[in-house]
Amino acid sequence: MEFSITIFLDLLGTFAFAISGLRLASGKRIDWFGAFIIALVTAIGGGTTRDLLLDVRPFWMMNPMYFITTGIAFLSAILFKEKLFRWGSTLFMFDAIGLGLFTVVGISKSLAMGLPFWVCVMMGTITGTLGGVFRDVLLNKVPLVFTRDIYALACVFGGGVYYLFYKFGFSSDITELMTAITVIVARLIAAKFHLQLPLLKPINENIQKK
Amino acid sequence: MEFSITIFLDLLGTFAFAISGLRLASGKRIDWFGAFIIALVTAIGGGTTRDLLLDVRPFWMMNPMYFITTGIAFLSAILFKEKLFRWGSTLFMFDAIGLGLFTVVGISKSLAMGLPFWVCVMMGTITGTLGGVFRDVLLNKVPLVFTRDIYALACVFGGGVYYLFYKFGFSSDITELMTAITVIVARLIAAKFHLQLPLLKPINENIQKK
Amino acid sequence: MEFSITIFLDLLGTFAFAISGLRLASGKRIDWFGAFIIALVTAIGGGTTRDLLLDVRPFWMMNPMYFITTGIAFLSAILFKEKLFRWGSTLFMFDAIGLGLFTVVGISKSLAMGLPFWVCVMMGTITGTLGGVFRDVLLNKVPLVFTRDIYALACVFGGGVYYLFYKFGFSSDITELMTAITVIVARLIAAKFHLQLPLLKPINENIQKK
Repeated sequence: MEFSITIFLDLLGTFAFAISGLRLASGKRIDWFGAFIIALVTAIGGGTTRDLLLDVRPFWMMNPMYFITTGIAFLSAILFKEKLFRWGSTLFMFDAIGLGLFTVVGISKSLAMGLPFWVCVMMGTITGTLGGVFRDVLLNKVPLVFTRDIYALACVFGGGVYYLFYKFGFSSDITELMTAITVIVARLIAAKFHLQLPLLKPINENIQKK
Repeated sequence: MEFSITIFLDLLGTFAFAISGLRLASGKRIDWFGAFIIALVTAIGGGTTRDLLLDVRPFWMMNPMYFITTGIAFLSAILFKEKLFRWGSTLFMFDAIGLGLFTVVGISKSLAMGLPFWVCVMMGTITGTLGGVFRDVLLNKVPLVFTRDIYALACVFGGGVYYLFYKFGFSSDITELMTAITVIVARLIAAKFHLQLPLLKPINENIQKK
Repeated sequence: MEFSITIFLDLLGTFAFAISGLRLASGKRIDWFGAFIIALVTAIGGGTTRDLLLDVRPFWMMNPMYFITTGIAFLSAILFKEKLFRWGSTLFMFDAIGLGLFTVVGISKSLAMGLPFWVCVMMGTITGTLGGVFRDVLLNKVPLVFTRDIYALACVFGGGVYYLFYKFGFSSDITELMTAITVIVARLIAAKFHLQLPLLKPINENIQKK
């Protein structure tokens, strides 16, 4: 996936993640600078945490395109608010693409460092979802990823597909492509049919608390 | 403390920390995957932060037992909810054991890297308590560790005991054992008698805010 | 800026940041230990994150003065509460000085590691503001830095000034001094006239949420 289409999709995902940060920040008495920061954290927070855990330099320091893409998302949100609204389902598609791409990047980068496969799947999931967790923590909410339609689990499905293709000796291009498609399709199906995992039911609160 | 009993206690502590994450996540409209993540963050968040600060690879990447133990805790919470309730005081004991063990691991690991002793005590405290802080932030609450019976301070007491035994030339086994016991006993006494530090009283809010 | 006046100002800034943590923690049912931790995180959280991103050892591990200064701030808050109130505008000045100094330290440290200048400005801004973000997240609030008078933007202005002086070949002493002064003056003017960026207006919420 080193051809330029990947880079284009990666930036599309970044754009969609940034917009999701801006959308959730809007109307909450957050100023422009704060909104830009929340957009940036949503877009690069997952990959940054992955890189800290892998002990490599955060990816965005070497390439200003992520920063610039977030800036474009910010300007779009200021200038084309009503139009962005009409793009709703397109943005949703970008977001799913971003999730798929980010998961693949996280898995491949970790695998290249010789980590066990289950750690790589965790890193893929972290890359795809942690930006949104930071966004929600900064906006003082319980992270959406914990509560709604299947989202993080799509990354884990993708990890399973990656493992199969990898073990059966497929090329990394095919492996990564199939992984990304799995994540994207799983996410779209989950959203369309509102597939949800069961909620964790209350455990009796009389127990002495930790 | 390199004998297998330590590993067993370490996993008991991990189990108890994971359960505390699940208990606080339950009944809050959090789905199974989210609950598992909160359990995992509670169990490994402190040690992971310590390892990031020490610039070493996070401990759980090299040993899947922490991940698996969290999975077992998760399954237990799903399957044996009512029984878990009856285990309340046992789990509380596990939690105190986990706190003691995690503190010792944090201090010893930092000391082995040649850090000043006060930094090591901070690392022990971080190892023991930060997972719970992350849990509470994700659940959108002020961290319990800041507000209730003595908890983090027990780690600091343990650090003091470690220092004394270390300076007086005791073997590391004895030093670590006495430290863990100090933390555990301090925590149990604090919980039994509801020992609390004073609260920070309001400072006049008319001051220009930072 | 390696003369002792810098160290003195750096600790003044640390003191002011710690006090801002204590002030916001006070009256919120937070115990003394928790308050100390919030003060510490406010004072060193920004620089610690910078150092994690730069992959260097956190600055406070090599010099206990930051820890001790936070301790002094804590004792002052316990002992001289009413007097601290009268110091209000002095503390506000310290806070602005801290912001300026921390920004300079963040930029210079990153520049010395050969990072692109826009990354250095981000690091300066992170150093100056992220401690306050952590403080507010721990206190379960939307970070103040996202919502009120210009604060983080002052760091970016400082970054611009740093860039100009650096490019025109001024000595690092002059460059750093002018940067710090810019941040401090920008912050004081913003606070005096309540200069605010526009808020991000609501974007229609009917869009499918990320």
